[in-house]
Amino acid sequence: MQMKIKAIFSLAILAILGVFALVLTSGGALAFDFSTGGTSASDVSFENMKFVKNVMIWFMLMLVAFLMLFIKKYEWGVALAVLLSAAGSFIVYLAIHDFVIGDTWNQDLMLMAVICAITVVIAIGCFLGNIKMWQYFVVGILFAPAFVIIEWFMFGFAGSNVSTDALLASLFGYGASDAGGSMLVHMFAAYFGVGVAIAIREKRAFDEPMYTTTHSVSFVWLASMLLWVLWPSFVTALLPAEQVFWGMMCCYMAGIGSIVSAWIVCTAIQKKVNPLIYTYAMLAGPVAIGTPLIMVGPWAAIVVGIIAGAISALSFIYLHPVFCKKIGALDVMGVHNLHGVAGWLGAFVGVIALAYNATIEEAFTNLLAAVGVFIITLVLGMLVGLLIRATRGSFQDDKMFSDDADFIKNDAPA
Amino acid sequence: MQMKIKAIFSLAILAILGVFALVLTSGGALAFDFSTGGTSASDVSFENMKFVKNVMIWFMLMLVAFLMLFIKKYEWGVALAVLLSAAGSFIVYLAIHDFVIGDTWNQDLMLMAVICAITVVIAIGCFLGNIKMWQYFVVGILFAPAFVIIEWFMFGFAGSNVSTDALLASLFGYGASDAGGSMLVHMFAAYFGVGVAIAIREKRAFDEPMYTTTHSVSFVWLASMLLWVLWPSFVTALLPAEQVFWGMMCCYMAGIGSIVSAWIVCTAIQKKVNPLIYTYAMLAGPVAIGTPLIMVGPWAAIVVGIIAGAISALSFIYLHPVFCKKIGALDVMGVHNLHGVAGWLGAFVGVIALAYNATIEEAFTNLLAAVGVFIITLVLGMLVGLLIRATRGSFQDDKMFSDDADFIKNDAPA
Amino acid sequence: MQMKIKAIFSLAILAILGVFALVLTSGGALAFDFSTGGTSASDVSFENMKFVKNVMIWFMLMLVAFLMLFIKKYEWGVALAVLLSAAGSFIVYLAIHDFVIGDTWNQDLMLMAVICAITVVIAIGCFLGNIKMWQYFVVGILFAPAFVIIEWFMFGFAGSNVSTDALLASLFGYGASDAGGSMLVHMFAAYFGVGVAIAIREKRAFDEPMYTTTHSVSFVWLASMLLWVLWPSFVTALLPAEQVFWGMMCCYMAGIGSIVSAWIVCTAIQKKVNPLIYTYAMLAGPVAIGTPLIMVGPWAAIVVGIIAGAISALSFIYLHPVFCKKIGALDVMGVHNLHGVAGWLGAFVGVIALAYNATIEEAFTNLLAAVGVFIITLVLGMLVGLLIRATRGSFQDDKMFSDDADFIKNDAPA
Repeated sequence: MQMKIKAIFSLAILAILGVFALVLTSGGALAFDFSTGGTSASDVSFENMKFVKNVMIWFMLMLVAFLMLFIKKYEWGVALAVLLSAAGSFIVYLAIHDFVIGDTWNQDLMLMAVICAITVVIAIGCFLGNIKMWQYFVVGILFAPAFVIIEWFMFGFAGSNVSTDALLASLFGYGASDAGGSMLVHMFAAYFGVGVAIAIREKRAFDEPMYTTTHSVSFVWLASMLLWVLWPSFVTALLPAEQVFWGMMCCYMAGIGSIVSAWIVCTAIQKKVNPLIYTYAMLAGPVAIGTPLIMVGPWAAIVVGIIAGAISALSFIYLHPVFCKKIGALDVMGVHNLHGVAGWLGAFVGVIALAYNATIEEAFTNLLAAVGVFIITLVLGMLVGLLIRATRGSFQDDKMFSDDADFIKNDAPA
Repeated sequence: MQMKIKAIFSLAILAILGVFALVLTSGGALAFDFSTGGTSASDVSFENMKFVKNVMIWFMLMLVAFLMLFIKKYEWGVALAVLLSAAGSFIVYLAIHDFVIGDTWNQDLMLMAVICAITVVIAIGCFLGNIKMWQYFVVGILFAPAFVIIEWFMFGFAGSNVSTDALLASLFGYGASDAGGSMLVHMFAAYFGVGVAIAIREKRAFDEPMYTTTHSVSFVWLASMLLWVLWPSFVTALLPAEQVFWGMMCCYMAGIGSIVSAWIVCTAIQKKVNPLIYTYAMLAGPVAIGTPLIMVGPWAAIVVGIIAGAISALSFIYLHPVFCKKIGALDVMGVHNLHGVAGWLGAFVGVIALAYNATIEEAFTNLLAAVGVFIITLVLGMLVGLLIRATRGSFQDDKMFSDDADFIKNDAPA
Repeated sequence: MQMKIKAIFSLAILAILGVFALVLTSGGALAFDFSTGGTSASDVSFENMKFVKNVMIWFMLMLVAFLMLFIKKYEWGVALAVLLSAAGSFIVYLAIHDFVIGDTWNQDLMLMAVICAITVVIAIGCFLGNIKMWQYFVVGILFAPAFVIIEWFMFGFAGSNVSTDALLASLFGYGASDAGGSMLVHMFAAYFGVGVAIAIREKRAFDEPMYTTTHSVSFVWLASMLLWVLWPSFVTALLPAEQVFWGMMCCYMAGIGSIVSAWIVCTAIQKKVNPLIYTYAMLAGPVAIGTPLIMVGPWAAIVVGIIAGAISALSFIYLHPVFCKKIGALDVMGVHNLHGVAGWLGAFVGVIALAYNATIEEAFTNLLAAVGVFIITLVLGMLVGLLIRATRGSFQDDKMFSDDADFIKNDAPA
């Protein structure tokens, strides 16, 4: 044992020295250089806000794990899958923007990187428990280029060396308007995830029981309620300072709307509330308000939220079984019922609001953006899914949705 | 099934179009208009702070649910009751201020709205489990006008179209001083809640066992410890910038005081610590420092916290059974022992500090404010309680404090 | 009963009046005086940031409790031990800086006080469950002077009445560079805690089973993931504004590195992941990046994180049993494997980076700082441990790591 420790630590120290020699000689990476990343005194206030939002979006990313952690025998695996998929996409997104696109490291880049990571974390909800643990890391790595493609499609790469227009804008003269990410994040996550699930086509998932306990579901309540709270940070992350209050106001109003309407629909149709529907559908307002975030006033926002909560709850109850049967795969966490359906709603409200407040051309561009995101992400998801399917080998039947496959446990003997 | 889905979705889409037609034609609500809600560059820094505090107070509101979620068989119902009562009061508070009082939508309005919502969430702790789920929404709706009345009584409606003085100020020449809400939030919540409980007069609550588990109580520890952490955001939310640090400092000092004194009292009297007393009483310092927040220095604040933690723990142990017997109703979560008793303490310390630092007249106004809040909220609570009692029908005995009445469960078969 | 209540409340009211008479007549403490603690308009933006960081570091302190709360029969005791040790050190740290050193109350002082408190909270992880509850409070009280000594050793007391150089600087002409606290916080916590554990020498801890449940470990996942998220607030708390972004960027990059490498090491060596190793080792990157935080770029930071995560996981697996046997005490939470080992790594990387980017002399000063912190804190920890050992009396065997010793429970009858 002692020998083994010494050997390993010697190797570790050699590794440190080796890697640092490399980093040091590669020039500049290891250096006091705030010329690009430093903050001038004049915009320190707005930077502060972005610091806080960066932290809060990471906070939300972790909470998404707890939103999906209701299957008693499959809790820790959800947490680890979230960490690995987030890490893979975060690293590769930054590598592409640093080395390929030539972007500057700043708060906005870090915000987009964590938004990329939270999108893949939502997406894996469609096929959680169906793939091997190491494959979540691979999904994350493959997701990042897909995210960069959609970024370019919708918004281009402003402020980078490449400095390209959005594909949409170069074709139609207008870029997409999607302040709070109904399309970029939610539709993307839903249809990429559905695409992967379709390609994997794991039929056994339909038959696997998903028993919960009081407390596994209490964790879901905690996550859902705190996600609701932190949502304004997410939708206002990239807004100019003078629009931030407006975005926060509309986000909370939409959220209040879906808290109420999801409860009414759940109770009216099923007599009792299914907490695994309600805790998701109560977030549909914030999802749907993303695109029209700063195009509407507070009372219109609450209406959007009311409709979104109702439609999302209806989708969980009526659409979900039909949809899963049709695509031949179980959308494990019902991602499509929240992010897909409410994402489409947000996209449509955005089109209506643009047509009314701006121009028909801009409305049309946004419609194309929604359709484009839908098709591109579905196809890219299926491609990634095929790769995952080819490499995942076979599951033991009793190891689906199970922490036993991946974790050492230390429960008290019965 | 297919038909039903089509029907429902068609209706939903019609509803969207219909409501939007309404909103669009009603003019202005759906519009890019930042003229009122927009933020000028000069005060963007202070707006940032209020953005963060808005989020943090919502965070606290959700944590209050987990502070009250220790009865194993009644966890999810507490979470849903918190959401519904918060939603009802939030919507109606904003509707009154927008349509009746004519206020401008800004960060301060949103802050007051969530402070209104957190107050009713604290109040329902007095009668949780005693009313039907839909009635929490009604309580929220009825609570908002009560909150507006007390607002006017204590502070008036500055900056609105109505622009009225506080009732107190118009009568006595001085307005109340209550920076951190010992009176406006804590006494209000406690006596409104007690008023409702008195009117409902549900005797069976006394006999209902409230068994906990290790983890249901661990959620309470989490909630209490994080509420303690976030409290400075709450007490400093509406302070001018130059007083914010002072408020934070005194809040944490008071909180440290009650962490220590509540532990000493619990251990000294009961030998072992009752976690459902300690996790509440350790918050008594932040409750009590509300009124005198910026009238005292840090070492006086810690003294206030020490006294508050001790008195609150003593109230849980000795006052609670006597008090509940006297009012003929069970204060389910012991709201009065934390918010009522420590609220009074804060009010009294405020009176003493004003008499010493300001004028006897201002001290007298604050005393009147405390007595006024006590009487008005108790009466309004009783009125609301009578309405709730008249409409709630009868409980099955085995359904009090029970999630079974409201939720679909999916536990593993034994 | 009634008499007892009256007696106690009378005493309490007398106590209030008495203490306030004291505070009032002692002059100034109870007064509207913002001359020292108030914030000028010009730096309100940066103050805002420190307000938020103050809150977030307190948030992290509470999360450390939940990181250590995996032993099912010993959860609430961990939470209370954290509160009491934090309270003791926080009060005494501020008392020393106010009354002895003559510091001004401001955001920086409050930040250092909570950093002192979080350091002792990490330290108690080495001997949790081995001492009486009241002794955690005593450990906190005794820890604060030790922290002040190290503060002076490394940084001096700038901005105070005493206004002394750091001991290191007065001896060698340079002060230590430790922006994110690899040495000041992590090495300090680890070796102080190890020192206490060595002095207590509680052999029975080795034999005590530490059974977990799914949900006790899910709380640990929650705490670890949120600590990871909030870490940038901690490492950038005392940085000048223009370095804050850089610190955040490097902190997250290092964290991503250890998320990946800790998983690879755990899986490669043990086939399955031990969640009580992984949830700790995934934090090793943020620990290790503390000292070199603003000396390296983002890709070097991720390398530091990868190495730190790997070494920390290796330490849990191979070093831990050997280390504990050698010191003759169980490092209960494996504090040394995370904070000790990754702290040393951070210190070494800092020395290398200073030698490369600054001067050999500055690198040498940092090396001395690391060695000094190691020796001084180990010795001070042993001194405190001897005192604790002398006063703790004897445990009943079945009461180690047990909430039964300290808490009233109300579980349902079987």
